[in-house]
Amino acid sequence: MTSTITNRRDLDFLLYDVFDLLGLTAHGHYADHDKETLDAVIDTAQKIAEDHFLPHAALVDEEEPTFLNGKVEMRPEVKEALTHYYEAGFLAAPHEYDLGGMQLPHMVSTAIKGIFTAANVGTTAYPFLSGANVNVIKNFGTEEQKRLFMEPQLTGRYMGTMALTEPQAGSSLSDIKTTATPGDAGSYRLSGNKIFISAGDHELSENIVHLVLARIKGAPPGVKGISLFIVPKYLVNEDGTLGERNDVQLAGLIHKMGYRGTTSTMLNFGEKEGAVGYLVGEPNKGLSYMFQMMNEARIGVGVGAVVLGYSGYLNALAYAKDRPQGRPPQNKDPKAAQVHIIEHTDVKRMLLASKSYVEGGLALALYAARLVDQLKTAASDTEKEESRLLLEILTPIVKSWPAVYCLEANSLAIQVLGGYGYTREYPVERLYRDNRLNPIHEGTHGIQSMDLLGRKVTMQNGKAFKILAERMAETIAAGKDQTGIKDFAIALEAALSQVEQTTRTLTAEAAKGNIDLFLANSAVYLEVFGHMVVAWIWLQQAITAQRGLEQASSEEDTAFFQGKLQACRYFFRWELPKIAHGCRILEDFDRTCLEMREEWF
Amino acid sequence: MTSTITNRRDLDFLLYDVFDLLGLTAHGHYADHDKETLDAVIDTAQKIAEDHFLPHAALVDEEEPTFLNGKVEMRPEVKEALTHYYEAGFLAAPHEYDLGGMQLPHMVSTAIKGIFTAANVGTTAYPFLSGANVNVIKNFGTEEQKRLFMEPQLTGRYMGTMALTEPQAGSSLSDIKTTATPGDAGSYRLSGNKIFISAGDHELSENIVHLVLARIKGAPPGVKGISLFIVPKYLVNEDGTLGERNDVQLAGLIHKMGYRGTTSTMLNFGEKEGAVGYLVGEPNKGLSYMFQMMNEARIGVGVGAVVLGYSGYLNALAYAKDRPQGRPPQNKDPKAAQVHIIEHTDVKRMLLASKSYVEGGLALALYAARLVDQLKTAASDTEKEESRLLLEILTPIVKSWPAVYCLEANSLAIQVLGGYGYTREYPVERLYRDNRLNPIHEGTHGIQSMDLLGRKVTMQNGKAFKILAERMAETIAAGKDQTGIKDFAIALEAALSQVEQTTRTLTAEAAKGNIDLFLANSAVYLEVFGHMVVAWIWLQQAITAQRGLEQASSEEDTAFFQGKLQACRYFFRWELPKIAHGCRILEDFDRTCLEMREEWF
Repeated sequence: MTSTITNRRDLDFLLYDVFDLLGLTAHGHYADHDKETLDAVIDTAQKIAEDHFLPHAALVDEEEPTFLNGKVEMRPEVKEALTHYYEAGFLAAPHEYDLGGMQLPHMVSTAIKGIFTAANVGTTAYPFLSGANVNVIKNFGTEEQKRLFMEPQLTGRYMGTMALTEPQAGSSLSDIKTTATPGDAGSYRLSGNKIFISAGDHELSENIVHLVLARIKGAPPGVKGISLFIVPKYLVNEDGTLGERNDVQLAGLIHKMGYRGTTSTMLNFGEKEGAVGYLVGEPNKGLSYMFQMMNEARIGVGVGAVVLGYSGYLNALAYAKDRPQGRPPQNKDPKAAQVHIIEHTDVKRMLLASKSYVEGGLALALYAARLVDQLKTAASDTEKEESRLLLEILTPIVKSWPAVYCLEANSLAIQVLGGYGYTREYPVERLYRDNRLNPIHEGTHGIQSMDLLGRKVTMQNGKAFKILAERMAETIAAGKDQTGIKDFAIALEAALSQVEQTTRTLTAEAAKGNIDLFLANSAVYLEVFGHMVVAWIWLQQAITAQRGLEQASSEEDTAFFQGKLQACRYFFRWELPKIAHGCRILEDFDRTCLEMREEWF
Repeated sequence: MTSTITNRRDLDFLLYDVFDLLGLTAHGHYADHDKETLDAVIDTAQKIAEDHFLPHAALVDEEEPTFLNGKVEMRPEVKEALTHYYEAGFLAAPHEYDLGGMQLPHMVSTAIKGIFTAANVGTTAYPFLSGANVNVIKNFGTEEQKRLFMEPQLTGRYMGTMALTEPQAGSSLSDIKTTATPGDAGSYRLSGNKIFISAGDHELSENIVHLVLARIKGAPPGVKGISLFIVPKYLVNEDGTLGERNDVQLAGLIHKMGYRGTTSTMLNFGEKEGAVGYLVGEPNKGLSYMFQMMNEARIGVGVGAVVLGYSGYLNALAYAKDRPQGRPPQNKDPKAAQVHIIEHTDVKRMLLASKSYVEGGLALALYAARLVDQLKTAASDTEKEESRLLLEILTPIVKSWPAVYCLEANSLAIQVLGGYGYTREYPVERLYRDNRLNPIHEGTHGIQSMDLLGRKVTMQNGKAFKILAERMAETIAAGKDQTGIKDFAIALEAALSQVEQTTRTLTAEAAKGNIDLFLANSAVYLEVFGHMVVAWIWLQQAITAQRGLEQASSEEDTAFFQGKLQACRYFFRWELPKIAHGCRILEDFDRTCLEMREEWF
């Protein structure tokens, strides 16, 4: 049976052919890996995901965790699946050998995360949050903090959370109010309320390590007064054994549209004597620590959005190939057999649009993951700096583009299945509901648009965009030399030039200090920029596919490369031209939204 | 508290000011009504909807009907709400006085349906399906059929369904297989399986009257061999008392993404001795009877899509006015108070886009409802024929445009509420889930696009489009004379001309017999045509609003009219220009989707 959680042919194409994964193994850090070892890790992930994660995905959606007698209860399949995940070493895999890891390239970790997420986003969220937590402690914690709070997470004995959001602050982190008061032996006592804390309580691990943003009494207002603390559910003794229950209480579970297998919690810190917390790094630098992890977290969201959409597409494709219904418009003879719906042009349209979104999105996410790898493997400081800047400017795109377009693939998957797609008998509606979170968490779409235009595009006098434009120009030059690709290359060149012009117009206004006008239509800028970037990503795929087609030795290969080229064609003909309208709104400094008034609604 | 199910200010504006509801009362059929009586009916509907439908909307979403001990069980609030609905006479209201009705204009019935649907789509579906059933029997049934099966539905003693879809046929009605064999006393025995039959079983009424499409043995293949039957759950004696249980069995309930309060059923007819059914009208004309009701049913879907989106918007608006978070980009001082999120330009964008969709959608639906009324009130056959043709060509737009754009308003409402919007604490995610059905049922989006381009635009040598273009030209001429409106009128004139040109190009290909190429991108045509129509509907609103603004005597009125004009501006600047890209794809006869092959996916 064809997998509905991953398309390994496409994944291989992207990892090995388009983005040269093996090129990374020239670097010492990844030198032990080759295609065989990497394939084996991905195979194992797919097998565990299909055997232990996928089968209970619908079940944990229907039967959410409950809060009963002071404990969170959930289906036993979750714990069982996670045992397989941890036993195969997937949480530690990205880390160094001396931490029990495999020193896996981030590209491969990203692909694996995608496979598990596509299988069961609810169950997968528990280890993924631990993974993010581990990265923070690893980068900014003391040796003792690593020993006591990070290492037990690598094997699943402990799990972790990221406790940022508060009810009154939401996305506005400068307004968080949780306070920390110096206590015994260098520890702090924390007090405050957090909301939307995923995996914030459960019985899946011996302990839960919360990473909590809080304000040390007397700290400056705003983002410059926020510190980061480790606050464990159970205190941990010097020797690593568990001590008393800490003053962290589950105030309630939040019930959501999707992601229903993951507990989303309201947590009260310090309702009694104050929750014991340990400062990570220096006071008042908590947000900068968090944000140094944010690129990877946001790429993680992008990958999640991609694979949920991708799985929707794979399900719709399987259905469309199998479901007979109706006849072509030129043959309405009711005595003729019905055709499979994949033969209807409008169904092809929906599937081809989806293909262009999800394969474009996956390529984008893997390219970003490669940039993360390049931070490790760069041959020079300049190369490293360039990768860093590319990652900075692409992060809001990776976070937000798939959250719109791969979510659209989920909606199209429902549409392809018709009435059946709207039922809970098929997974497509669940995948849609799960994916609808992605335009919201880890910085909403609006916040990404402000980050892109207000910060990333303008920083260092536009250096990040300049480097991106250079890389795009290289691809364009390569594409222009290739038969069958030239038209795409020319179209991308025009799009780049258009977006550069728009950007100059906008930043000139920013230079005049008209910040509100500069940023007024930032959502449109994000849209335009995203389509330009994904067109570039598609051109890279098309160049490789065109070469592959010329050398293809099997019908299967030929069909695969033809499909890539047709999806690229779809993106260039149906999607890319939409940026013209967006650029016009931006260049006109359209004030329709800016000037709308509350009382007019 | 502001209502979250209806905006009466807008409804009044559309009914009375833009579409001249009272003009209809010049006609005898509606002559007893005036503004006072009509307002009173709408007030009553709103009160019953808010008091008895809205409070249990979330409850029936969480606790779906179950199939227990051979019976469908559901929350008692459903029956209680329906008792109020029937006691107030809402099911009979559109009908003649001698049927216990109020001879309500269809515009008002439509508005009322919208109010109930916005309050609780799950509960509302039961009487609405009965309403459709009643219309069919009223138009095509015998006097006895009306007495036995229609009249008890007017008071809620019986309810009804429309049983069209079969598992193997789906949208392809020509492939339905349920058979009817002549039986005793002019009756038939039916045998076959139906799926997705809403309200197909329940204990809300004494009896359930199924209207079933089936094939009389020996009938021609395809749509020309389909007949329509009344098949009651319980047989009915001559005197109207209930007889034996008919051979109709509930095979199972279908669990859906939304609309969870409405039973969606699989029904088996004739598993034992055959289900007793009564032919409606003549043999083999069943589909044409159904389709004569389809315009109203499809307008009904459009209204449903509008009001679910509208309610999402009203909820988002209330939240945005109340929720403090963040600060404007030009003032990031963390010591300053947070502003309400409605002050952020990107939130205004989401709300303004939603406003343009839902108010545009409501106006479109009410305009279509007025055309239904005009079939009754037309002063001449020509006028009646023009209304009929306008209704024909606009029906696919009314069915499908709100199902895309008002659904988008639901998604934007989730986004405005952010993390909260994704929870089941607020209704916005439920409204989204409910609305996601509307692009599917009563003819999918793809089917609407084929209906529009393949049938409605070409029928009678394009007469329907010609009449529509004339009406649009009248509005354009009026708009050109008005300060503040002129630019919109000019833009619409250009859009109309562009769509006319595209249509000529397409139909020329159809004339050559290249039907597959002609219809290949029909979904794009539907999109383009829909935006053109809604722009016209917005221009009509803007003309009235501009006049209103010039005469406004209160701040509240001024704000209302300014809001209308700004939403119109949004639609003309941000939305209408998108049709240029669609027209290019169409005029190029883009073959990207048509030429995609199954093996390339």
